[in-house]
Amino acid sequence: MRLRFELLHTDGAARCARLHLPHGVVDTPAFMPVGTYGTVKAMTPEELEALGAQIVLGNTFHLALRPGAEIVALHRQGLHGFMGWERPILTDSGGFQVFSLAKLRQITEQGVRFRSPVDGAEVHMSPEDSMDVQRALQSDIAMAFDDCTAYPAGEAQARESMERSMRWAVRGHAHYYRDAPPGHLFGIVQGGMHAALRTASLEALSAHDWQGLAIGGLAVGEPEAERLRILEHTLPLMPADRPRYLMGVGYPQDIVAAVLRGVDMFDCVMPTRHARNGHLFTSEGIVNIRNACHQRDTGPLDPACACSTCRRYTRAYLRHLDRCNEILGVRLGTIHNLHFYLDLMRRIRAAIAAGTLGALAARIMAIPRRSLAPMA
Amino acid sequence: MRLRFELLHTDGAARCARLHLPHGVVDTPAFMPVGTYGTVKAMTPEELEALGAQIVLGNTFHLALRPGAEIVALHRQGLHGFMGWERPILTDSGGFQVFSLAKLRQITEQGVRFRSPVDGAEVHMSPEDSMDVQRALQSDIAMAFDDCTAYPAGEAQARESMERSMRWAVRGHAHYYRDAPPGHLFGIVQGGMHAALRTASLEALSAHDWQGLAIGGLAVGEPEAERLRILEHTLPLMPADRPRYLMGVGYPQDIVAAVLRGVDMFDCVMPTRHARNGHLFTSEGIVNIRNACHQRDTGPLDPACACSTCRRYTRAYLRHLDRCNEILGVRLGTIHNLHFYLDLMRRIRAAIAAGTLGALAARIMAIPRRSLAPMA
Repeated sequence: MRLRFELLHTDGAARCARLHLPHGVVDTPAFMPVGTYGTVKAMTPEELEALGAQIVLGNTFHLALRPGAEIVALHRQGLHGFMGWERPILTDSGGFQVFSLAKLRQITEQGVRFRSPVDGAEVHMSPEDSMDVQRALQSDIAMAFDDCTAYPAGEAQARESMERSMRWAVRGHAHYYRDAPPGHLFGIVQGGMHAALRTASLEALSAHDWQGLAIGGLAVGEPEAERLRILEHTLPLMPADRPRYLMGVGYPQDIVAAVLRGVDMFDCVMPTRHARNGHLFTSEGIVNIRNACHQRDTGPLDPACACSTCRRYTRAYLRHLDRCNEILGVRLGTIHNLHFYLDLMRRIRAAIAAGTLGALAARIMAIPRRSLAPMA
Repeated sequence: MRLRFELLHTDGAARCARLHLPHGVVDTPAFMPVGTYGTVKAMTPEELEALGAQIVLGNTFHLALRPGAEIVALHRQGLHGFMGWERPILTDSGGFQVFSLAKLRQITEQGVRFRSPVDGAEVHMSPEDSMDVQRALQSDIAMAFDDCTAYPAGEAQARESMERSMRWAVRGHAHYYRDAPPGHLFGIVQGGMHAALRTASLEALSAHDWQGLAIGGLAVGEPEAERLRILEHTLPLMPADRPRYLMGVGYPQDIVAAVLRGVDMFDCVMPTRHARNGHLFTSEGIVNIRNACHQRDTGPLDPACACSTCRRYTRAYLRHLDRCNEILGVRLGTIHNLHFYLDLMRRIRAAIAAGTLGALAARIMAIPRRSLAPMA
């Protein structure tokens, strides 16, 4: 079945669209909070809905190890019923986690063999296994199982890795669509920092019908200029009538830069992980709530923010909760950071519709990336 | 100012009443969730209100160390504004925490000197200090600073400790009421397991005007029969027109047993702490959600329970969250356990009004106290 990608507005290369998925509509450019183990850390589904999240990401690798796909599949609508989230879900393929987490991994043409980080057991995952898990999870969007190219990688290494990903993509595509799939399958463009390999990857993928394409192998440690160079090379070559997903990116500034170049979908652990470390995104930059300067500060975290954390609590209280390792501190920080990201996406969509994305981008780019220095 | 304690119904020695406090009305018998560091662990104030909590307990000892009373006092209505809880708050005096937590504590007539468990600094707390902190926190009910008697304690040791508590109570009373107090002060009956000392403690307290009385020095490791013996001796001697508070108790069965004997108020960390350890209260007994028997169980935790956790999630999901140390698991367990306790109090109040407390008590007493054995 063809995924309906309803293009509404453009502003330069940036697009504003509606993605029609089995469990609902997603407005793009969209940010997907990461729900590794069937929960966006510290949040309930009701809270995510209240913040305006329309889609979340689930990690195939982690869910396959705990609790196992067969446990999730016992639930109505798979992962939706398991985690109580009725809206769309995208599952990654596990390729990136195998690449970044697994010890003693051994890549063969068949797939990947690795030691489970949970209990050390030997686990095997092939493109077909990944599709079986993602089908059992009943995600709205499944991702091709890829071999994520390390950074840095020379041309020969990047080519070998990319070509393996392309062969695995073909196998995964056949397996995912072998009978009534629960959702849509996206391909992943690889090729490292080599523009010609990105072109070759796109050509290989074009032999099959992918409902969307992702750019993989970025946000793996490369300099920003390298990432932008690859984005500027790759995005114009991608089909304009299908969604484009930049995996694992990133800071608000990175998201805006990618939207300007034509990306529609994003995921990143940054807002949730930063919240757990006391790093909170504001219109002035990242506040480290652990700093002593907040000890007696009865003002809100961000006076410009409309989230429930900023409306109800003081910096002094947030710092106190963090200092006492209170769960509520993580909750309030996560609510705030996810609000910041999801509100940014709303502002981006409105700006594209209004033809004012350039002005918004300039304001976001002006926010410092690093933590704000403690006030005197 | 006299605390208005509006007696509505009695059923034997059990009473159902309305406590009129500066920040609102509390229906008794009441259970107070414990909010040690200005947060009932893992919960927002909105969630506590939705569960029907009408009053929470704050720990003077902990808040005095972190963040310090002067930080809380910068907030509107003290602890209410700091933690965003607009309803009534009772603060303990710190006496019990000094007794149970502090290392190298040294008791003198002046007060207690101890090492802070946070940073090892030497701290001093006198009855006057405790009142200063509780006034700064602006709790609706403050507690006298007492010397909690250890268990077991011989007659001489228990007498010395009780008499010190009574002298400290007088000093605290004078200090709390020296000018416009933010709430009401309760005295604490001590005397260990010695009935005559409990009588003497009550006689000493009767020389001053306490707006309510608590029974301290129980739930410190004594057998149930000892606790019931002291309760049955002490409660009939306490003023019938003021609230009676049994500190730190306990299991649902203990609460019912104490209500039957005339207790109006309770606090205990059990529902919140048990939730963090995966022990969940149900109508059949305590479920250990970590047990493997729940791995594939797509039924609710407690089919008889109306809480949001039981309505929305499966045992398999709750076990998975616990196994992955996910914050959401603690949240859902805490919501369920607090619902169990607060719903128990609602049922107790309704039963007193209907004259059917005996039948309800028999049903609660029949619930096993220990964790249910895993099902085959």
